Amino acid sequence: MAAFEIPEEQWAQVVEKSGGPAVYKKIPVQKPGPDEVLINVKYSGVCHTDLHAMMGDWPLDTKMPLVGGHEGAGVVVARGSLVQDIELGDHAGIKWLNGSCLACCFCMQADEPLCPHALLSGYTVDGSFQQYAIAKAAHVARLPKDCDLEEVAPVLCAGITVYKGLKESGARPGQYVAIVGAGGGLGSMAIQYAKAMGLHVIGIDGGDEKRESCQKLGAAAFVDFMSSKDLVQDVKDATPDGLGPHAVILLAVSEKPFQQATEYVRSRGTVICIGLPAHAFLKAPVFDTVIRMITIKGSYVGNRQDTQEALDFYQRGLVKVPFKTVGLSELQDVYSLMREGKIVGRYVVDTSR
Amino acid sequence: MAAFEIPEEQWAQVVEKSGGPAVYKKIPVQKPGPDEVLINVKYSGVCHTDLHAMMGDWPLDTKMPLVGGHEGAGVVVARGSLVQDIELGDHAGIKWLNGSCLACCFCMQADEPLCPHALLSGYTVDGSFQQYAIAKAAHVARLPKDCDLEEVAPVLCAGITVYKGLKESGARPGQYVAIVGAGGGLGSMAIQYAKAMGLHVIGIDGGDEKRESCQKLGAAAFVDFMSSKDLVQDVKDATPDGLGPHAVILLAVSEKPFQQATEYVRSRGTVICIGLPAHAFLKAPVFDTVIRMITIKGSYVGNRQDTQEALDFYQRGLVKVPFKTVGLSELQDVYSLMREGKIVGRYVVDTSR
Amino acid sequence: MAAFEIPEEQWAQVVEKSGGPAVYKKIPVQKPGPDEVLINVKYSGVCHTDLHAMMGDWPLDTKMPLVGGHEGAGVVVARGSLVQDIELGDHAGIKWLNGSCLACCFCMQADEPLCPHALLSGYTVDGSFQQYAIAKAAHVARLPKDCDLEEVAPVLCAGITVYKGLKESGARPGQYVAIVGAGGGLGSMAIQYAKAMGLHVIGIDGGDEKRESCQKLGAAAFVDFMSSKDLVQDVKDATPDGLGPHAVILLAVSEKPFQQATEYVRSRGTVICIGLPAHAFLKAPVFDTVIRMITIKGSYVGNRQDTQEALDFYQRGLVKVPFKTVGLSELQDVYSLMREGKIVGRYVVDTSR
Amino acid sequence: MAAFEIPEEQWAQVVEKSGGPAVYKKIPVQKPGPDEVLINVKYSGVCHTDLHAMMGDWPLDTKMPLVGGHEGAGVVVARGSLVQDIELGDHAGIKWLNGSCLACCFCMQADEPLCPHALLSGYTVDGSFQQYAIAKAAHVARLPKDCDLEEVAPVLCAGITVYKGLKESGARPGQYVAIVGAGGGLGSMAIQYAKAMGLHVIGIDGGDEKRESCQKLGAAAFVDFMSSKDLVQDVKDATPDGLGPHAVILLAVSEKPFQQATEYVRSRGTVICIGLPAHAFLKAPVFDTVIRMITIKGSYVGNRQDTQEALDFYQRGLVKVPFKTVGLSELQDVYSLMREGKIVGRYVVDTSR
Ligand SMILES: [Zn+2]
Ligand SMILES: [Zn+2]
Ligand SMILES: [Zn+2]
Ligand SMILES: [Zn+2]
Ligand SMILES: [Zn+2]
Ligand SMILES: [Zn+2]
Ligand SMILES: [Zn+2]
Ligand SMILES: [Zn+2]
Repeated sequence: MAAFEIPEEQWAQVVEKSGGPAVYKKIPVQKPGPDEVLINVKYSGVCHTDLHAMMGDWPLDTKMPLVGGHEGAGVVVARGSLVQDIELGDHAGIKWLNGSCLACCFCMQADEPLCPHALLSGYTVDGSFQQYAIAKAAHVARLPKDCDLEEVAPVLCAGITVYKGLKESGARPGQYVAIVGAGGGLGSMAIQYAKAMGLHVIGIDGGDEKRESCQKLGAAAFVDFMSSKDLVQDVKDATPDGLGPHAVILLAVSEKPFQQATEYVRSRGTVICIGLPAHAFLKAPVFDTVIRMITIKGSYVGNRQDTQEALDFYQRGLVKVPFKTVGLSELQDVYSLMREGKIVGRYVVDTSR
Repeated sequence: MAAFEIPEEQWAQVVEKSGGPAVYKKIPVQKPGPDEVLINVKYSGVCHTDLHAMMGDWPLDTKMPLVGGHEGAGVVVARGSLVQDIELGDHAGIKWLNGSCLACCFCMQADEPLCPHALLSGYTVDGSFQQYAIAKAAHVARLPKDCDLEEVAPVLCAGITVYKGLKESGARPGQYVAIVGAGGGLGSMAIQYAKAMGLHVIGIDGGDEKRESCQKLGAAAFVDFMSSKDLVQDVKDATPDGLGPHAVILLAVSEKPFQQATEYVRSRGTVICIGLPAHAFLKAPVFDTVIRMITIKGSYVGNRQDTQEALDFYQRGLVKVPFKTVGLSELQDVYSLMREGKIVGRYVVDTSR
Repeated sequence: MAAFEIPEEQWAQVVEKSGGPAVYKKIPVQKPGPDEVLINVKYSGVCHTDLHAMMGDWPLDTKMPLVGGHEGAGVVVARGSLVQDIELGDHAGIKWLNGSCLACCFCMQADEPLCPHALLSGYTVDGSFQQYAIAKAAHVARLPKDCDLEEVAPVLCAGITVYKGLKESGARPGQYVAIVGAGGGLGSMAIQYAKAMGLHVIGIDGGDEKRESCQKLGAAAFVDFMSSKDLVQDVKDATPDGLGPHAVILLAVSEKPFQQATEYVRSRGTVICIGLPAHAFLKAPVFDTVIRMITIKGSYVGNRQDTQEALDFYQRGLVKVPFKTVGLSELQDVYSLMREGKIVGRYVVDTSR
Repeated sequence: MAAFEIPEEQWAQVVEKSGGPAVYKKIPVQKPGPDEVLINVKYSGVCHTDLHAMMGDWPLDTKMPLVGGHEGAGVVVARGSLVQDIELGDHAGIKWLNGSCLACCFCMQADEPLCPHALLSGYTVDGSFQQYAIAKAAHVARLPKDCDLEEVAPVLCAGITVYKGLKESGARPGQYVAIVGAGGGLGSMAIQYAKAMGLHVIGIDGGDEKRESCQKLGAAAFVDFMSSKDLVQDVKDATPDGLGPHAVILLAVSEKPFQQATEYVRSRGTVICIGLPAHAFLKAPVFDTVIRMITIKGSYVGNRQDTQEALDFYQRGLVKVPFKTVGLSELQDVYSLMREGKIVGRYVVDTSR
């Protein structure tokens, strides 16, 4: 175990007031507490949540000033006195859940994301848009040494989240799952995870480009919400017995797709909500929900076990991440593209520039 | 196995056109097909659904003319050639699910209530508001000989339905369940089932009479929605750790209670919808549902296994049914009371008068 | 729906006394009862169980004289008056479970194979080693019209059985499953089902031929029990974290492999017993089973839902069956090879010769 | 939060060499590490495992010299710098699992008892047979202030263990569970937990005294293995449908009761092994286990969540513990009684004498 030379100062993107912007500047490097590690972040994915954190438009307060980022992949360069199962030089990932109490009734049941004392990277604690970030040792993602730190970054939030949603859906190998928003960045990962889990995918999105991208990734069917004359019927028809998919993963929840999902999902099926549009509401007819025994379920980020499982699928080559890399200094440009809705895959920032 | 003398004609309550009324008159007795039994109905409970069936205000067509009723308890007096596990003289119950195909993908997975070929007593086939009713042998409830046919009648729909809802909630012994509408007829049965299942009950309803009735049945707490200044907080406070109940059973779904349920249910908890108000909608904020990982689930009637289990609890004396008996000839009066919202427990009709 | 010309007599293999042999001769064609269908069997797989049935060496009595066979694929040529969801001309399969009561506590919970009134094809009722066989309509496997009746035959017992075992193991996509006897006929199907379900397979068998066959089918690792110096350690080492597979499927249970399975399975893992050697016993050390919380579980044949799921995997081309076809008249030769342990894949008999 | 005066020395029972005896003497008081608490133990239960630890007859090495004990109830008097959710003066319990890594694949899935780095109280670390004991803060049982520290002590191992076994059995409210060894100390707690969970109990034990004790605690039936002429049949007959109990809890596993359990448990039922006789083996016939789809499962101690749930049942008055208190100085006498098999309920030691 080599010792690492750790600088006193580092480059970071710092949000100084709610609403932004993020400022690229030098800030001090922190020291890990007894149960923490210090990670030299090499790459970090950029997630829609980072934009929400900067804008402060979610009903949950952020730390301020704030270093955002929660898809950081790097190398452990220091550790606290209690940390025993991570060595200096190990590769590790910083994810949305930076830490949790590990002792409350949620943590005790492996639902750490629901911990009332949860620390959120790039939201309630500083995250991965800096060269050296702190995280609770029990929570950092364990990455194998041969893991590509650039490509794995987006798995640390996007990958885990869609994998968790698929797990929560209860869909079993051989069953059908509809993915709403299948042609986007999250969607393309969801299709790949679903297939690796033995599921058949019905991609739902708009336009021929999205259709092609879904088909290339192996979706069994594609329904175009822009050209379909009867979306509900078309999705049902995409299953061999016409009864509809066993589960629906809503990556882009707005009220319209949500209501339709409860209509085309198979009786006894499950609609999983993942997307987090500000101020939106779920709405479903009581009668149909009851007599068809439909389940509607919110799925947040994965716990630590989900994290390792999602990473395993990636590591075995079953999930390719569509990404584009820019320098950490260019983060504000990525936010601009995001606001304009111009991002298809995932952006990754390189902290060395 | 004695042979029974079966008359050619019998008394029945017949709805001759959608909107009602039900007419008390003599009609012919039917003969069972090869896989059916003929039951001499002694008593039948009256359910809100019977009123909906007569009025035709649900988005599902009824048979017409129609003999309503789906909580019939009686004696098997004839059986078809294929029926082997029921003897003449056995006690049996007619429930909402009169029959199903037993071979579709839902029936094969013990979800007979979702069978697209389901026969519904008092809705798509004639039900228990007559002295002799037909039912598919595989579906009639098996009642022990020492079972009180008068008291058990309401268990056959109301009992099964609340028991099923509690089962579907996934709440485990020792956990807390809130019952919305706990002071009514369904509610009083739900409290008793919940307690027999090792659950702690928070009754939610309005008024001191309801409070008393809930407490007498053993509810751990009662929250009065008429006098509470902060219902959500009060329900949460009724659990020892203040995190809210693990499950909520909605017996009276209107949009207001539903939305509140998603607010006070514990994170990772489940809200079960049972009630079927015409034209109502579920509505819940996406953000909260997702980050608290809440499940909303429709629960319809029980399958055959749920039926036998619900009856077992009753048979062991763990569930008492609050009911009042009138003659079958007085059914129309019961409907009038129902319309005026004046019924607390359950009405049972005696087919002999 | 065409009418079929049905002969009075047909060719069949008839076991006339316990111990055999099977005699190839002409016997009358039966007529279906109200809830039955008559199937013109085109092909039938031959299973080890058929040999046990003829020899009468299992602790369960057979019908006598007996027409064996429980992997029959053919065409429905007649049906009883109650049968509504099967048309003449439909393709259908006869499986081990010829019928069940559909009303007992096991049938009600979709565990038809445990029904005390179960009818077993080629064991307690005549099976598929004849040109025209009877089966309960609710139980025949539904085969799509484009299904190859010759190749699908072995799926109807072997395929369903291994698929069921994998399902019962509780192993989730991404986890590891060890298959003991992976190089045999059942084993090769088990590997393919496991992979289609997103599992990683550790094949366990003896010899280089078996190793090659496992690797060709996509096993992640192979452990040779003939050459391994420490089988338990080798199986554990075949999982990335060295903790052993999450589940073990025992296709060839003798006491030795069984005891080893409880040693190398991961803590909290599950050992599934499928094989049925006469007179064998499971044996496991109490201490280790308790403190490692290991589950040992018997898995019998699949229910009707498992059947359709197993067929779906086959139909999508995810499972290829290694088989060899001979005439029905040559059945006795197949039994001879079986007794000598000389069969690797699966034999299918063609009822037309 | 008051400060506590902590002495330098304390009384303890120390095993100085494998084989015993335990010596009552003064030893230094330890200081808690950053993630630990120091508990002033008031009472501690005495468990069979403590005797095994002293004798060293289990296939798992102990620390030496060793302070035994793993059912300690007391008051937190000091805590490390990282401990935030426990205050000085809080009541807390020391249980078998003193600590675990909280980060391995077992801990991440809430299976802390399977953690390869687990610390075991009174076995691999010093336990509760001393006045001041150390435990990992994340693992100590949280006890309410109004909890009777004397009576609760035995819940901390015995109670949790039987509750966990019942949970692992998968038996649902309304179902039947047979408890082998129902008349002993563990058994009496198992009966009470089972009833509080809505289960029906068939007590199995030997002699009229045991029968009476089981019946007094509410067992639905009792089968005396000393006087029964056909134990398997008698247990099956104790269930209304004669099919046997849904689950069996084996508190006293020797090969005989185990084999019988697999015979009388209902098809698809579960046999839970809890007892840990040295060198014993499970043994079951393969044929019957497979075709009846029986599950055999080892259940070790509960995790932290099980602990809090088991304590909740106790705290609500649903479980009374039969115990007798002696001074800590008399521990060796308790061991003598234990060796002679003369203990029925549970012994508790008072550390003040
Ligand atoms: Zn994110
Ligand atoms: Zn927590
Ligand atoms: Zn009803
Ligand atoms: Zn059906
Ligand atoms: Zn077979
Ligand atoms: Zn049956
Ligand atoms: Zn103990
Ligand atoms: Zn651990």
